[in-house]
Amino acid sequence: MTRRRYSPVPFAQVKLTSPFWRERLETVLTRTIPSQHAKLAEVGALESLKLPQPPPPLRIPRNSHGLSTQIFWDSDVGKWIEAASYALAHRRDADIEAKIDAIVDDLARAQSPDGYLNSWYNGREPEKRWTNLRDNHELYNAGHLLEGAIAYFRATGRRKMLDVMERCVDHIATMFGRGPGQKRGYPGHQEIELALVKLYRLTGDRPRLDLAAYFIDERGHQPHYYTEEALARGDDPASYWAGTYEYNQSHIPVREQTRMVGHAVRAMYMASAMADLALELGDENLKRACEALWRDVTTAQMYVTAGLGPKDTNEGFTEPYDLPNETAYAETCASVALIFWAHRMLHLDLDGRYADVMELALFNGALTGLARDGVHYFYANPLESRGGRRRWAWHVCPCCTMNVSRLVASVAGYALSVSGDGVAFHLYGGFETTVTLAGVKVALRETSAYPWSCEVRIDIDPEAPATFDLKLRIPEWAKGAIAAVNGEKVALAPVNGYATIRRPWRKGDAVTLDLKMPAERVYAHPNVRMDVGRAALRRGPLIYCVEEADNPGGPVQTLALPRSAPLDAGWRTDLFGGVMTLKASAKRLVPGKGGGALYSTEPPAAEDAALVALPYHLWANRGPGSMQVWVAELDG
Amino acid sequence: MTRRRYSPVPFAQVKLTSPFWRERLETVLTRTIPSQHAKLAEVGALESLKLPQPPPPLRIPRNSHGLSTQIFWDSDVGKWIEAASYALAHRRDADIEAKIDAIVDDLARAQSPDGYLNSWYNGREPEKRWTNLRDNHELYNAGHLLEGAIAYFRATGRRKMLDVMERCVDHIATMFGRGPGQKRGYPGHQEIELALVKLYRLTGDRPRLDLAAYFIDERGHQPHYYTEEALARGDDPASYWAGTYEYNQSHIPVREQTRMVGHAVRAMYMASAMADLALELGDENLKRACEALWRDVTTAQMYVTAGLGPKDTNEGFTEPYDLPNETAYAETCASVALIFWAHRMLHLDLDGRYADVMELALFNGALTGLARDGVHYFYANPLESRGGRRRWAWHVCPCCTMNVSRLVASVAGYALSVSGDGVAFHLYGGFETTVTLAGVKVALRETSAYPWSCEVRIDIDPEAPATFDLKLRIPEWAKGAIAAVNGEKVALAPVNGYATIRRPWRKGDAVTLDLKMPAERVYAHPNVRMDVGRAALRRGPLIYCVEEADNPGGPVQTLALPRSAPLDAGWRTDLFGGVMTLKASAKRLVPGKGGGALYSTEPPAAEDAALVALPYHLWANRGPGSMQVWVAELDG
Repeated sequence: MTRRRYSPVPFAQVKLTSPFWRERLETVLTRTIPSQHAKLAEVGALESLKLPQPPPPLRIPRNSHGLSTQIFWDSDVGKWIEAASYALAHRRDADIEAKIDAIVDDLARAQSPDGYLNSWYNGREPEKRWTNLRDNHELYNAGHLLEGAIAYFRATGRRKMLDVMERCVDHIATMFGRGPGQKRGYPGHQEIELALVKLYRLTGDRPRLDLAAYFIDERGHQPHYYTEEALARGDDPASYWAGTYEYNQSHIPVREQTRMVGHAVRAMYMASAMADLALELGDENLKRACEALWRDVTTAQMYVTAGLGPKDTNEGFTEPYDLPNETAYAETCASVALIFWAHRMLHLDLDGRYADVMELALFNGALTGLARDGVHYFYANPLESRGGRRRWAWHVCPCCTMNVSRLVASVAGYALSVSGDGVAFHLYGGFETTVTLAGVKVALRETSAYPWSCEVRIDIDPEAPATFDLKLRIPEWAKGAIAAVNGEKVALAPVNGYATIRRPWRKGDAVTLDLKMPAERVYAHPNVRMDVGRAALRRGPLIYCVEEADNPGGPVQTLALPRSAPLDAGWRTDLFGGVMTLKASAKRLVPGKGGGALYSTEPPAAEDAALVALPYHLWANRGPGSMQVWVAELDG
Repeated sequence: MTRRRYSPVPFAQVKLTSPFWRERLETVLTRTIPSQHAKLAEVGALESLKLPQPPPPLRIPRNSHGLSTQIFWDSDVGKWIEAASYALAHRRDADIEAKIDAIVDDLARAQSPDGYLNSWYNGREPEKRWTNLRDNHELYNAGHLLEGAIAYFRATGRRKMLDVMERCVDHIATMFGRGPGQKRGYPGHQEIELALVKLYRLTGDRPRLDLAAYFIDERGHQPHYYTEEALARGDDPASYWAGTYEYNQSHIPVREQTRMVGHAVRAMYMASAMADLALELGDENLKRACEALWRDVTTAQMYVTAGLGPKDTNEGFTEPYDLPNETAYAETCASVALIFWAHRMLHLDLDGRYADVMELALFNGALTGLARDGVHYFYANPLESRGGRRRWAWHVCPCCTMNVSRLVASVAGYALSVSGDGVAFHLYGGFETTVTLAGVKVALRETSAYPWSCEVRIDIDPEAPATFDLKLRIPEWAKGAIAAVNGEKVALAPVNGYATIRRPWRKGDAVTLDLKMPAERVYAHPNVRMDVGRAALRRGPLIYCVEEADNPGGPVQTLALPRSAPLDAGWRTDLFGGVMTLKASAKRLVPGKGGGALYSTEPPAAEDAALVALPYHLWANRGPGSMQVWVAELDG
């Protein structure tokens, strides 16, 4: 573990001035969060909390595995409360609070006298509770409700929901564990572990942490709980619809796992909880397990957009270097959860490789999940489209919608961290806060047009002179970054991705940082067979794509970019309120002497064409044309 | 229609001397056909014919759409009888005949007094017959049994099965049609149309042809039969599991169809029947519909291997130029059926473009479905694999197994055609026959090591001197083909892919033909986005692939072939009893200065490597390594 521990500065203590993020935040506050409440009402999720009632017909029919995503509705409600509470931390809103309070009243009424709370089971089949942890998300739902309760308490000080959920956790702690009469179960979809750590951090109540640790450590042990549980239900464990316990990462104990497998969101939530526990328990062994999984994901299983999980059938991982573009699943939730994990790893070790991935996922894999209008979404995030992909207004499994809104509403919480005598900037783009460093209150104001511009200014205003570390993240792509203090150049010698300036700071001090942000080509490891002969375009933290709207004249897949063609970044005011595009002189492949034949011994001809690339997260906001991240490259 | 009509010389009248095809034929006769009977017995398909009996539990459970492939078992039996009968035409076999006779006895017992025959319905739910033509394959099954009956009658003269099936057809003709009280139905899976045309050709019984024409022409008319039928069952037509009537090509009347859609095998059987009917009825309108569909398939929807149908969920077509390689479905049956269609088109117009596709499908898309050992198969035929694809010994839906065995057992039937005073050679490789040309019996002996060698010799031995057209197919790839008669060079002026030599032929005349067969690169239309920057390798009718067994050192997808590198064909005696491989000096892409990083601004480095390519149909006979047809190309 690092000697000097850094802790995140919570988003509620950070003022967001970033033009880039203000726009997204405003959209989420004014459009996304209200519309999500309306959707939850419309689909019936809010009505389903009003117990007792005769259960209405299923709104979402069971699939071929006998499962209905309706069983996860409590989690959607919990996530919406969490996102809405983050919004309240920006500005209180009586209407939203009334809506949350109404839900809380329903939850309190729906709760069983013993603390059990799950609207599906209490409403439909109370006798079956805790009989199918593998599939039916009771602990996952409770986790999201608990996260919602904590967020709402932090935002408003109102504790009714927190009390409800604490009673629920008390019940869960009675049910599960290694004691006599307890079930040795654990969640089929990891999530409650994260919520329990948050609860521990809020209350200091150690058994909450122990319960999280139990869930993580019990996972995957033999005799296998899900096998026993299936037998107890009278089911054949061998007919498990997912085929393998790798699906939910319970195939072996978590500390023995070195390859990331199965459902990507489950995997990321689990890894995040592992990192939480490694930190809180000082558990070096668990930390090493996290590191092994991190290595696996980032060296062999992650899209260049920080998308995760290529396959739709398991919504998850397959095998190293298997990263198909057009059929990429890359669920928005998985990239959001990768941010959670990376953020936690970063606080185990202040290492820029974690921050780099966190930022990559933030600006690309996650942000693309939310349309410009704030009320349309992507669940899967392919890196290529033949056209025809449209964002949807809601989803039968709307997990991604609230994952992206709770992320954007709390994005400032990922920007900086403090130790006793140091502050570390992870993100740039306009963040202000006041923190205590070396015992002195210090106002910090970071100003920039990042990610469009790489010129950052940080104003440092301690109440009294104070000596502390100013740690500036130098992203992996920022080669040749330079900085100055009060106009005087300082040498930067980044260690693990952070350059440290330690000096006595005085009121009025200002640091400028020029990260250098060339537009550049990125190449995949040649074992990524889909990307052989192709390059992705990147500028700073943004991965670019070519979209048909900017490249009319045929499918964008017929564009080919000479390796030596300069990439010119240019500001476009006419698009999305201002965006940096990349342009290059490229070629458009057209039928050669073979004419329009499907196959010919004549290679295609190459005509001059301008290639225009747009940040990937902005694609599919102008209709359903073709799109591609990995552009074919010509040698010339 | 052509003035001078060519008709195929039936395979039973052609002696196969081709080393290439003899080996495949022997394998099919001695291993495939007997093993298929054993498999049909093992899975329960033969037992299911023994009616009446209390229906045993389903051997093949219903899928999520409520369908079981067990419902198609009759078709598997019919196809096996057809394949086995073709084998008998090569050499009689008492054991196989006894096996067929036993099945025929069961079929006769299973038949209802009114002629209806279907072991599923008669055994399980006789009251439901003819209530779900859309899904349940009754007409398809009857079609395959009828084709089996015709083949068995032709091979042995025994007509019990033919009598059974004629009674069944009589029943079907009563049930379906436009007369009063008849159902206006047609097959959910086209096939019986082909069988009815065969029956008409055998018996001359015109109503058989009319019934086939009715099924084709009724298809897709409004009010839609499958909608009415679903309502009559009490089902919601809108909840049709396939989502669209395009799936079975009944979305619009067949003559209005200009784009090939839906399930590929259904589509090919339908198109084959349309061509049959266009010929038999002299129906120019139907012929034009065939031509429009042909154009669509061959200019926008066919893999370079003549595989058809990229998508697994509909086992069929998607949209123009959508030809993914690794996920290609390209069902073996679809390529077999493409051969059927191409062969029929060729007899509407003697045009080499039909023969070219027929041959392409034969040597590539179809033949790859059968392993060298004759007892393992591919159902889907992707053009790329990351490794791990194994051939299977049987399939829950074994349609492809008997499609490939009946094809190979009758392959000589695709070799040549005759008109009153002409003979056309479509295939080369060792075929002998005696036909009547210009009123004279003429023995023809074609000798070659085709497809390995392009040097063909044809000996012509008329009983008396006779003047007729010798039409030699000059494949599209055979640029600069030359020929000689009795050693004297003759000028070749191919018209529509056939060069005609007309002269008085005498005993002892010999024609030699050198087709020229360079190893060459093939490029896809640039709209095929998956193949941009890639080349396929071809020599003559064979499409090649690179397989890891011949290219050790990493996934074959890391190989890149400079555009200018010569391709050297070389005979390898150590592989598969002799095979022509292609070799080239290529590059192996390895991590560049970025090291083993998943993404880097440094492009991969290119190391010298030998590339060895193998005919595509031979892949996956040596374990499950990586494979690729479309090789990345370097400009140099």
